[in-house]
Amino acid sequence: MNKRLQKLMNWMKEKNIPFAFITAPENVFYLTGFRSDPYERLLGAAVFPEAEPFLICPKLDEADARNSGWTLEIVGYTDIENPWDMIESRVKSRVNHVNHIAVEKHHLNVARYEELIGRFPGAVFIAAEEKLERLRMIKDKDELALMKKAAQYADLAVEIGASAIREGKSELDIRAEVEFEIKKHGIAEMAFSTMVLTGKNAASPHGIPGHTKVQKGDFVLFDLGVMYEGYRSDITRTVAFGEISEKQRDIYETVLKAQKAAIAAIKPGMMAKDIDLTARRLITEAGYGDFFPHRLGHGLGISIHEYPNITETNELRLEEGMVFTIEPGIYVPDTAGVRIEDDVYVTEDGVEILTSFPKALTFV
Amino acid sequence: MNKRLQKLMNWMKEKNIPFAFITAPENVFYLTGFRSDPYERLLGAAVFPEAEPFLICPKLDEADARNSGWTLEIVGYTDIENPWDMIESRVKSRVNHVNHIAVEKHHLNVARYEELIGRFPGAVFIAAEEKLERLRMIKDKDELALMKKAAQYADLAVEIGASAIREGKSELDIRAEVEFEIKKHGIAEMAFSTMVLTGKNAASPHGIPGHTKVQKGDFVLFDLGVMYEGYRSDITRTVAFGEISEKQRDIYETVLKAQKAAIAAIKPGMMAKDIDLTARRLITEAGYGDFFPHRLGHGLGISIHEYPNITETNELRLEEGMVFTIEPGIYVPDTAGVRIEDDVYVTEDGVEILTSFPKALTFV
Repeated sequence: MNKRLQKLMNWMKEKNIPFAFITAPENVFYLTGFRSDPYERLLGAAVFPEAEPFLICPKLDEADARNSGWTLEIVGYTDIENPWDMIESRVKSRVNHVNHIAVEKHHLNVARYEELIGRFPGAVFIAAEEKLERLRMIKDKDELALMKKAAQYADLAVEIGASAIREGKSELDIRAEVEFEIKKHGIAEMAFSTMVLTGKNAASPHGIPGHTKVQKGDFVLFDLGVMYEGYRSDITRTVAFGEISEKQRDIYETVLKAQKAAIAAIKPGMMAKDIDLTARRLITEAGYGDFFPHRLGHGLGISIHEYPNITETNELRLEEGMVFTIEPGIYVPDTAGVRIEDDVYVTEDGVEILTSFPKALTFV
Repeated sequence: MNKRLQKLMNWMKEKNIPFAFITAPENVFYLTGFRSDPYERLLGAAVFPEAEPFLICPKLDEADARNSGWTLEIVGYTDIENPWDMIESRVKSRVNHVNHIAVEKHHLNVARYEELIGRFPGAVFIAAEEKLERLRMIKDKDELALMKKAAQYADLAVEIGASAIREGKSELDIRAEVEFEIKKHGIAEMAFSTMVLTGKNAASPHGIPGHTKVQKGDFVLFDLGVMYEGYRSDITRTVAFGEISEKQRDIYETVLKAQKAAIAAIKPGMMAKDIDLTARRLITEAGYGDFFPHRLGHGLGISIHEYPNITETNELRLEEGMVFTIEPGIYVPDTAGVRIEDDVYVTEDGVEILTSFPKALTFV
């Protein structure tokens, strides 16, 4: 049994939960090593406090599941078989009385919930996501290695983007070049929709890349990441295209100072909110407090947003193994938008920065 | 009130359902014109048989929702407001007693379901997806116009792909070029993961593009589509790279003959299964019956797979306005894989083909 499963099983033992049925693809991947998007078909990991877990998936995917390293039972069903019958009999052979079932309440849909209710009448449903989020929050050595690779490709993608900036090109042109080139390096999927924003678009925290052309005197903001063997990176860099104004430079230097100060503050044992407040205070003191409308950062891993939240109210204490973003931004409408973001890893006594594209103001 | 909403409201009247809460982004788009992916945030259309519907969405998206053409009430909530309180009060001001609620049981998650149960105790939940799928199955003139545009861009993407084939390039190289070039034409998103398959990969109905290089004497199979203002296209073409064998040519001609015969058979009033059987019979007669392991086609529109299913058992009768794919394929391991796919529209008395890249065997 792998350590991740063992931790979930220990929790179930503690809480007296005889059966957990986990169906969110990210959690199935985390627990079993099998990464798959089954679309509307059922994929699930059935977990028990004492008995052997099993994986259920479409028959078509059985070989992939086996190749992913899962050595325990795999139940494959064809399109003419009812997977719920197969689940019911296997669960009932492992557990005498299913009085509680742990499920992901924010993922499981009503149709599947009704199947479980029908087959295990009277069972009480317990939310499993909080536990899974907390397990996933602390990365192990293998995960850290993958996240470092993902971060390196994100650095490379920003480098490609910064070199692609030329008068006459639009945000969408540059985005297409970044994705084209990074895919040649073997990256099959970006971590989220790549953002290339300039001028007024960059000055909105919710801009969407469009046909706006880059113009001398504007910032160009890249916010992007890649998927690497199931793990995501997320970097933001803002570069200057041609000469910029004093005001623009002041905004940039304020964001950079706040970003570096926040990272320098990170230590295991401190509260998440104190990192946010470190950056927020500096930005407020510089007079831009009203123009930093979002949290400082978010956890990162298999999902693009996971625990811990780096907000001004989160009292969670940092622990070794957490990975999250640090991404202060200042958006002054019609003037400039700047965000600088790194992915960081909490170490035994401080922090390691995973992304490494230079942060000193770059002119292209 | 738009016609689509009116049809849903009529159904609710008939079935005595006082409240429907629709949350799948595709269905919200279909009913309201507002296309949005809210990720983990709540987006919903609240519909009533008599009273005015309302749209609920994050405050951030309110302006976009208004710009999308929705003229009725929009309820925007911030991250510190509880959207369920806002829904409850508005529903209770419109409906005296909520005894039934229509929801998408395959989409709504358990956490949201529990919110609805808590706020409307005793309500019975009715599955809404079948009705919505049936409404969406018949396309109106506006939808047809968008699907024609989407199909034209799919033709263009295949043309780009076919011209990009050169010795030494891999499937992934060619895929990256197709997506790069089509995005320059303003397409922001493909309809699904673009397939470029060659040699042995193409000979599997479930191949995934990889680092395999194209080689003279192989087929190259493109299966791709684009998103155009919310609607998807889906085309497959298989082209020959250099000289091919008699066997390969026989497979190609058999698929083409079956594909054309199936399209020629389409008429409103006939059963879906008879289109599938038309193609299947020809392929079986040619001796390849065991090598055509999938359905002939699927409905297409806002989603890549919707109603009607074109399978050998579906007795649904065709109607004017249906759009679906016709995509027979023959996959002979280690020899060749060929699939040819068009998007078609059922007219008053026959069929219109939306995709138009040539189907006669093309050598590149």
